[in-house]
Amino acid sequence: MKPAAILETSRATIAEARAAIRSGRFTSHTSGLARDHVQGNVVILPQALADDFLRYCQRNPKPCPVLAVSEPGRPLLPTLGADIDIRTDVPRYRVWRRGELIDEPTDITAHWRTDLVTFVIGCSFSFEQALLDAGLSMRHIDQNRNVAMYRTNIETIAAGSFHGPMVVSMRPLRAAAAIRAIQVTSRFPDVHGAPVHLGDPSLIGIRDLALPDYGDPVDVMRDELPVFWACGVTPQAAIAQAKPDFCITHAPGAMLITDLLNHQLASF
Amino acid sequence: MKPAAILETSRATIAEARAAIRSGRFTSHTSGLARDHVQGNVVILPQALADDFLRYCQRNPKPCPVLAVSEPGRPLLPTLGADIDIRTDVPRYRVWRRGELIDEPTDITAHWRTDLVTFVIGCSFSFEQALLDAGLSMRHIDQNRNVAMYRTNIETIAAGSFHGPMVVSMRPLRAAAAIRAIQVTSRFPDVHGAPVHLGDPSLIGIRDLALPDYGDPVDVMRDELPVFWACGVTPQAAIAQAKPDFCITHAPGAMLITDLLNHQLASF
Repeated sequence: MKPAAILETSRATIAEARAAIRSGRFTSHTSGLARDHVQGNVVILPQALADDFLRYCQRNPKPCPVLAVSEPGRPLLPTLGADIDIRTDVPRYRVWRRGELIDEPTDITAHWRTDLVTFVIGCSFSFEQALLDAGLSMRHIDQNRNVAMYRTNIETIAAGSFHGPMVVSMRPLRAAAAIRAIQVTSRFPDVHGAPVHLGDPSLIGIRDLALPDYGDPVDVMRDELPVFWACGVTPQAAIAQAKPDFCITHAPGAMLITDLLNHQLASF
Repeated sequence: MKPAAILETSRATIAEARAAIRSGRFTSHTSGLARDHVQGNVVILPQALADDFLRYCQRNPKPCPVLAVSEPGRPLLPTLGADIDIRTDVPRYRVWRRGELIDEPTDITAHWRTDLVTFVIGCSFSFEQALLDAGLSMRHIDQNRNVAMYRTNIETIAAGSFHGPMVVSMRPLRAAAAIRAIQVTSRFPDVHGAPVHLGDPSLIGIRDLALPDYGDPVDVMRDELPVFWACGVTPQAAIAQAKPDFCITHAPGAMLITDLLNHQLASF
């Protein structure tokens, strides 16, 4: 799951990272790339569906914290970066028709339409950086795996054709670290905020932690609690079941990197 | 465990409460009395021991958050209330000689000495009020019991003759309420702050939740986590084992009520 070593990723400036992504030289996972910067999940929908989707996000802010919404047909996101062009600035995209994956390009200029609306949704990379800065280690990072994610029995609040279960990511932590992680992530409501659950997984409909629905499993030690955060896969799952006529998303892990700094999202 | 119904306790003003306590009309538990006001644990020690005790508190701020320390021999605490006289303003005291209880008066004027130093230490009543204000209920309050408290295997940091295990109070909460409770109590570092543990009690040396070392047991339901906060009984236990030549404390539950409002202690 390591990004291709085209860039010295942990040291790349935002300008270097964006230039490498825009030119198609960097087409992989963005984890650890320009690490002080906010990264976001990307969803691009025709305007006819965008209103429903925005209401869906508004009703489910923990899994779907909206960082920015574009003007219809405009590929710019000026509040996230003066020069961002969403058609070129994501390392790899997925293009969907009626729920089916039809293309995985590194540039969507050829797919662009004048009715498309871009949503950028907060991502756990920001709060993970805050957790690391607070001295907390995370097993999936130590083991160089993707975080474990699970569908729950917590239903999101529907809007139009968008609905479905909340998806959560899980990080095992000892109790004192879990308490600290709750404090740290509470400061970041725009990137999922505080956990939604900790302890017994069955209480939120998860049968077996060893069998995540997305990502990779990690061990939970006897002196640890599994801690669950609302996850940005939730809106992707809602879109997958809604099967819109047309949709573009980022490829998993290949996020939009913005000009915003993670610490700018801290609420206090 | 209900306070004697001398005052309409939940409606008494701070002036009414203090006057009733000072005159000896109110001699009982202060839980719920002048409930917007900060209450404190009281420890009065000869100056020869006070320096060690202050260092003990400084090294163990979660169980021993010091709200005020008096000048030696002065019975006043101007930062907690312009007219407080510690000799009369606690409903009931305990007077100790070499660790033995020798008196339980409602006024300590006869015991006063020119070398006594008063410590007022934050108490969980303040954060419990914040939890109630946040819409969280607590079983020991619903069941009109004292909170369950336990000695742990977490050693406090010693100073002089003061040392011993951290004592914790336990409140059972469902996961979402536990997360909210961590957020709420994190705002109140001067009254024990965030929990020190949650989940498996054996990890902090508690064998059986049904057998608290102090207070009353409460049930922990299958969908709840026991949540543990550092407790103001910790310094009392440290004093009990140090067996100072002379010491005065409040009687359990009969706290000093200050002019400070609970919300004034909130850190943000």
